[in-house]
Amino acid sequence: MRIALAQLNPTIGALNHNLEKVKNHYQRGVERGADLVVFTELALPGYPPRDLLNYKGFLDQERKLITNELMPLTAKTGVPILIGANQRQGIRLYNAALLLENGEIKSTHLKTLLPYFDVFDETRYYTRCTERKIEVLGDLPTAITVCEDIWNDMDYFNEPLYDLDPLKWLFTQGARLLINLSASPYHYGKHALREDMLPYLAKKYNTAVIYLNQVGANDELVFDGSSLVYNNRGELLYRAPADQEELFFIETDDLFKPAAQTAPPDRDDIGTIKQILEIGTRDYFVKTGFKKAVLGLSGGIDSAVVAALASEALGPENILAILMPSPYSTEHSLEDAKKLAENLGINYRTIRIDQPFDTFINLLNESKEPELDLAEENLQARLRGLILMQISNREGYLALVTGNKSELAVGYSTLYGDMAGGLAILADVRKIMVYELAHHINYIHVKKVIPERIIAKAPSAELRPDQKDEDSLPPYRVLDPILELYLEKNWSPSEIITAGYEEETVKKVVKMVDTSEYKRRQAATCLRISPYAFGAGRRMPIARGYDYY
Amino acid sequence: MRIALAQLNPTIGALNHNLEKVKNHYQRGVERGADLVVFTELALPGYPPRDLLNYKGFLDQERKLITNELMPLTAKTGVPILIGANQRQGIRLYNAALLLENGEIKSTHLKTLLPYFDVFDETRYYTRCTERKIEVLGDLPTAITVCEDIWNDMDYFNEPLYDLDPLKWLFTQGARLLINLSASPYHYGKHALREDMLPYLAKKYNTAVIYLNQVGANDELVFDGSSLVYNNRGELLYRAPADQEELFFIETDDLFKPAAQTAPPDRDDIGTIKQILEIGTRDYFVKTGFKKAVLGLSGGIDSAVVAALASEALGPENILAILMPSPYSTEHSLEDAKKLAENLGINYRTIRIDQPFDTFINLLNESKEPELDLAEENLQARLRGLILMQISNREGYLALVTGNKSELAVGYSTLYGDMAGGLAILADVRKIMVYELAHHINYIHVKKVIPERIIAKAPSAELRPDQKDEDSLPPYRVLDPILELYLEKNWSPSEIITAGYEEETVKKVVKMVDTSEYKRRQAATCLRISPYAFGAGRRMPIARGYDYY
Repeated sequence: MRIALAQLNPTIGALNHNLEKVKNHYQRGVERGADLVVFTELALPGYPPRDLLNYKGFLDQERKLITNELMPLTAKTGVPILIGANQRQGIRLYNAALLLENGEIKSTHLKTLLPYFDVFDETRYYTRCTERKIEVLGDLPTAITVCEDIWNDMDYFNEPLYDLDPLKWLFTQGARLLINLSASPYHYGKHALREDMLPYLAKKYNTAVIYLNQVGANDELVFDGSSLVYNNRGELLYRAPADQEELFFIETDDLFKPAAQTAPPDRDDIGTIKQILEIGTRDYFVKTGFKKAVLGLSGGIDSAVVAALASEALGPENILAILMPSPYSTEHSLEDAKKLAENLGINYRTIRIDQPFDTFINLLNESKEPELDLAEENLQARLRGLILMQISNREGYLALVTGNKSELAVGYSTLYGDMAGGLAILADVRKIMVYELAHHINYIHVKKVIPERIIAKAPSAELRPDQKDEDSLPPYRVLDPILELYLEKNWSPSEIITAGYEEETVKKVVKMVDTSEYKRRQAATCLRISPYAFGAGRRMPIARGYDYY
Repeated sequence: MRIALAQLNPTIGALNHNLEKVKNHYQRGVERGADLVVFTELALPGYPPRDLLNYKGFLDQERKLITNELMPLTAKTGVPILIGANQRQGIRLYNAALLLENGEIKSTHLKTLLPYFDVFDETRYYTRCTERKIEVLGDLPTAITVCEDIWNDMDYFNEPLYDLDPLKWLFTQGARLLINLSASPYHYGKHALREDMLPYLAKKYNTAVIYLNQVGANDELVFDGSSLVYNNRGELLYRAPADQEELFFIETDDLFKPAAQTAPPDRDDIGTIKQILEIGTRDYFVKTGFKKAVLGLSGGIDSAVVAALASEALGPENILAILMPSPYSTEHSLEDAKKLAENLGINYRTIRIDQPFDTFINLLNESKEPELDLAEENLQARLRGLILMQISNREGYLALVTGNKSELAVGYSTLYGDMAGGLAILADVRKIMVYELAHHINYIHVKKVIPERIIAKAPSAELRPDQKDEDSLPPYRVLDPILELYLEKNWSPSEIITAGYEEETVKKVVKMVDTSEYKRRQAATCLRISPYAFGAGRRMPIARGYDYY
């Protein structure tokens, strides 16, 4: 049997657009001799459809397209389709895999394990299915599963999240092939985890494994494709690309003999992070209908890295950098910013903010002189935000936010100022990793695109004379690990202190994080690369007490 | 038996602060002869604690306070405590009611029904309990339940949300008293629903009902107290206030005899909405540590109503209005704004934005003349936002957002402009209801505080000459019902059209709603009065297709 697998990049809610993709790939699969064409989880709605699932009309329309468009194809060609779809039963909704064959729904496989943590809300929409049956495809008894269904092996995981393991039921029924329709977003470490867990399952159950994942970004989530095929020895037969759609084919005979050659497991590194951020940027623009990006270029490292990533994702011709020096900007920052823009080949304009700054000092300060207080630092940032938004609104650019995760975590940023914009590319990247990205970007280009001085100088917001980040914050080599423990691993302050971090520093950092939640509530969409990013996956009260340290 | 019931207003995460409240009320209950003192759901963490529940250290601290502080009290006085608390069992977490007696946990009642819709995320944190037992209190077999546990009667509700009904199990075991520890936030219609459903349960099971609800606001959610007691005939014996803490007492003997007198069910009206918005405002300030509010006063109805509500909630002496006329503001708007400020007795300053507007026109327009485009409308709004934030940052005011739900729904608002601020009081109040609030505010004051002209004139943003809202939007009497159907009832556009609304208008409105999701993602905390508000309860993709109409 020849199975075609379509790793596609759907747009959320664009049922007709996604249908066209599915039909095209089905056609190509059939033309190239497939006996079955497989698609990912919720292939027509795209994943995650979120509250669109509250609209009965949306669900009806999805089902209509399956019934009127896809089912007839399988009758015409005789080649079945396996596809992820919503399945309503009375007032209950299930996340399902449908096997379409000869113009009918031959079988329905309802998801059992519904992820409910971090960015996932499946228990908000779906009912879990507590009974699963195998399907015979060709002559192969097959376990057809949807995403999370395979992620609860009670031997593999120390603390399985669910009481149930549908794989146990399915392999007890004699399955020899495991097919998993996924829409699984990236976070760091995920490649390594997948390529460890999947061969484990292959060996445990003596089963071949076909793992088909969605590709492309939807808002903050980057789905990294990288679909995988293993034979029943757990040897890797195929890995699809992380950044593009692909239709690939598997002969089922190959699934049960030794691999001709095999590759080591993929481990994600800084290059993966760069790729993920570029996919996230590209797709946010494509799917919101924007072509061009505008950003403020300060001469600092964050905006330099954002400019470099955006140039790669959207093409340098689509990037406009605005250099907005204030009375407190240094000359070298302006030079560095220009140099960077030239290296990247992006357009730039210089718009000094001295004049509007003076206007506001005149308007709002009784003394008519700057007071050099925090409010005036914010004022400068907001004047820049206002200029970017004016260019965005007038000329059709989408504004990029350049702040990093360390800053956003401790609230070292200005609401409506440097936080203004539609997409925050680095808002899940801690400062130290921003440096790694900068080094990596320079390493892969023959020419160093990011001027050395941008990387070498001490980080500064340049909002008052001689300001340095370390005037207000612990050094990033101390701050970043504390943030990781507190934000991504949910350690309590006392546990972090016990692990060896200075008590005063930990308390200061935790307090800064907790009291700046209101800023993050109004932050732009933030591309997610960590297991616990700011955005849909973080649900923290704003008005709260802080006395549990 | 004499039961003391404590309707308290906790601050989320403030374990020690909330503990002090609990201890004080327990003490008062004991002094006044109570045989049992009852508290609400998650009384020490406050509800909803959201992702604080991901911190094991937080849960440990809560339990430590129960063990070290509350349990010993019950040994000392001999009076038990019934209190909502987190209960860990291995890696599972339960939302529980604990009965503390004689220094020990006498029994634990784990919540069965975990709300997962709208603003609720309990399946994200908690495991449901599928077995429940009654407790004998004094000589009364009692069903001890937590909030949602009582909201799934299969006869009362047409489409029960859950498969289980713990009340059925508990009353099969012979319960004669139902105690429900709640933290149930307000939305309109909820008073009427509660006071219909609770007496229904009383009669159905021939049981007395004690419904104890949290009071006070936490971020967007306003918990409206209104705790209720019914005898086993379903006659209302007591209703606690909606807006304040209270300790009240019930003699269990009274629960099983006819009521001496009884009141009609409460129905919420525009006065309730006003009260809820004021509680929400008051508590957001109290719990974030702010005392003073600043807002822009335009001479329009939205900012007038916000000023009136905030004056009532925080005291007029704590409100600062900023009048920020632009070249396109009308003279009468400025007059009306001043008149309103004087009527309310709030401070105001006038800061014209002509000068900064000119500065930016000079800086950004090649012609050095206004172009009167949308970008310049946004610019004016953003200059105002910037001034408010400067005053907020410098003088310690919290900035109030004055926009209404109709505007926010269709994106008729400027990001970082009129959307700038910490709390949006009217962002869940549709325009027509804003008028109702204005009339009501004038009705209850002897003097008309909101000048008649503010109510009478056609709504306008005054961002270009002779601008009217109806130039860009359908009339609010058409817009608002469409918004209600689309946003709160999840009707599809085609269903709304079928119901009689003009196709072109519906499509236009729906498109405006869908394409302005990115603005709402960055909106301020919005006080919730509807069953489906913008905020934590709305989870809509931004980058998406729109082809399912």
